[in-house]
Amino acid sequence: MKSSYSSIFEKYLAENLFLSSPKELYEPVNYILTMGGKRLRPILALMGCGLFDDRVEKAVPAAMAVEVFHNFTLLHDDIMDAAPIRRGNPTVHKKYGLNAGVLSGDVMLIHAYDFLLRIENKSLVPEVFSIFNKMAIEVCQGQQYDMNFETSAAVSIPDYLRMIELKTAVLLASAFKIGALIGGASAIDADHLSEFGRNMGIAFQLQDDVLDTYGDPKKFGKKVGGDIVQNKKTYLVLKALELTEDTDRMSLEKLLSSSTEDEAVKIAAVKSIF
Amino acid sequence: MKSSYSSIFEKYLAENLFLSSPKELYEPVNYILTMGGKRLRPILALMGCGLFDDRVEKAVPAAMAVEVFHNFTLLHDDIMDAAPIRRGNPTVHKKYGLNAGVLSGDVMLIHAYDFLLRIENKSLVPEVFSIFNKMAIEVCQGQQYDMNFETSAAVSIPDYLRMIELKTAVLLASAFKIGALIGGASAIDADHLSEFGRNMGIAFQLQDDVLDTYGDPKKFGKKVGGDIVQNKKTYLVLKALELTEDTDRMSLEKLLSSSTEDEAVKIAAVKSIF
Repeated sequence: MKSSYSSIFEKYLAENLFLSSPKELYEPVNYILTMGGKRLRPILALMGCGLFDDRVEKAVPAAMAVEVFHNFTLLHDDIMDAAPIRRGNPTVHKKYGLNAGVLSGDVMLIHAYDFLLRIENKSLVPEVFSIFNKMAIEVCQGQQYDMNFETSAAVSIPDYLRMIELKTAVLLASAFKIGALIGGASAIDADHLSEFGRNMGIAFQLQDDVLDTYGDPKKFGKKVGGDIVQNKKTYLVLKALELTEDTDRMSLEKLLSSSTEDEAVKIAAVKSIF
Repeated sequence: MKSSYSSIFEKYLAENLFLSSPKELYEPVNYILTMGGKRLRPILALMGCGLFDDRVEKAVPAAMAVEVFHNFTLLHDDIMDAAPIRRGNPTVHKKYGLNAGVLSGDVMLIHAYDFLLRIENKSLVPEVFSIFNKMAIEVCQGQQYDMNFETSAAVSIPDYLRMIELKTAVLLASAFKIGALIGGASAIDADHLSEFGRNMGIAFQLQDDVLDTYGDPKKFGKKVGGDIVQNKKTYLVLKALELTEDTDRMSLEKLLSSSTEDEAVKIAAVKSIF
């Protein structure tokens, strides 16, 4: 099932890569879109449709929209996080420069809307755009909270869960919901799937936090330990702050407010406290 | 007439400033939106509507959409051009940092779509979104050509006119056209107004090129001479390259490929050749 959804999506992606001019604008777009990734969000959109209608192809432009949107957020987040590596390759701003990163990201966001507009049933357009817009705004809010938390001393676990809900989970929820609506789901069924996607998204991000510190560098794609280097207040950190006392607690707080020391030493020190 | 359209727009803007959380995301948005500016694009949208329907308020969410979109492009262009001043004030990335510039710009683009979705007549949504998307993609393409031309030796006047058409004129054209469609214009009338807006946009940009070099710094808002410092291939430069010979031509080419010397000296030298 997954492999058939996956191949439907990969075929559409290959047929819809960006061949327009200027190439300086679209080469970074194709670069990030063909870098791989799990294609989780477009597959959710196709699955959402497939639950209500066998013609899952109806949802493939919307699946493309959510994947293009997701990759736009990765591209701009990598700029904001000064991340050097994504999916085992140099990030767009590292490879093509800051300006290409900003502008190619912008055009991806617009193209995401353009794919969404290709939904056959035009009467769905206002509702689908409304879901998509709300989600997209929340993703930006989540990214801002994520950045705020890096320099904020007091982040609670509920604050953190809300942040990852905005930054990660609402996109999974919306992908599922939009796909379901395209498939002909009732409003209630679409909302249930959205809720399922939201909870899966939160779980997915918690797992990603663990992998960021303990994952296999070959499989993980990003730099293992990146969250620690960036002083991200992940679930691991917040739980450790809750459970540690005395010297461990003080060491952890000191490590989390530093940015100067050797990265490998910092990662090892934080992991030893975990 | 202009002042009544202007006050309709300013009232709507004041009522729709962004009060949501997190403030780090929305403060830069309100900062750039309340910095002033001519409000040319929203006024065109309202005028387009007003030609066909007295209830110009119908077009005010679309007017807001084009103004928010326009300010998003200014915000991100200022990052790409490393511009320090906009409308006499520090640019967003200077005042709030690069990350705020990137993310607040992104959320503005999404909110532009959100305002567009508030059009009362929902049956217009697919067409209006289609016009808006095409325009937005072209604006990004225009910005990329603009950046390409800074480092490209051979730019023709037709290349330049096409670039400013994409970067500036299509937004004026679309603002007019979307307003007209909301007012109930026929497809033919809407296209004529779009064409008028396009030509006005090209003329407007040519005038801006002149003002960038010869404008009154108090009235211009941006740094006078900024195009020269950035080696922008404006109409002034391209025409000067066409009309100069021998030493003037060589001096101009040398000046245009330099980036190291004193800015005031460079501006004066290029102006003396003009």
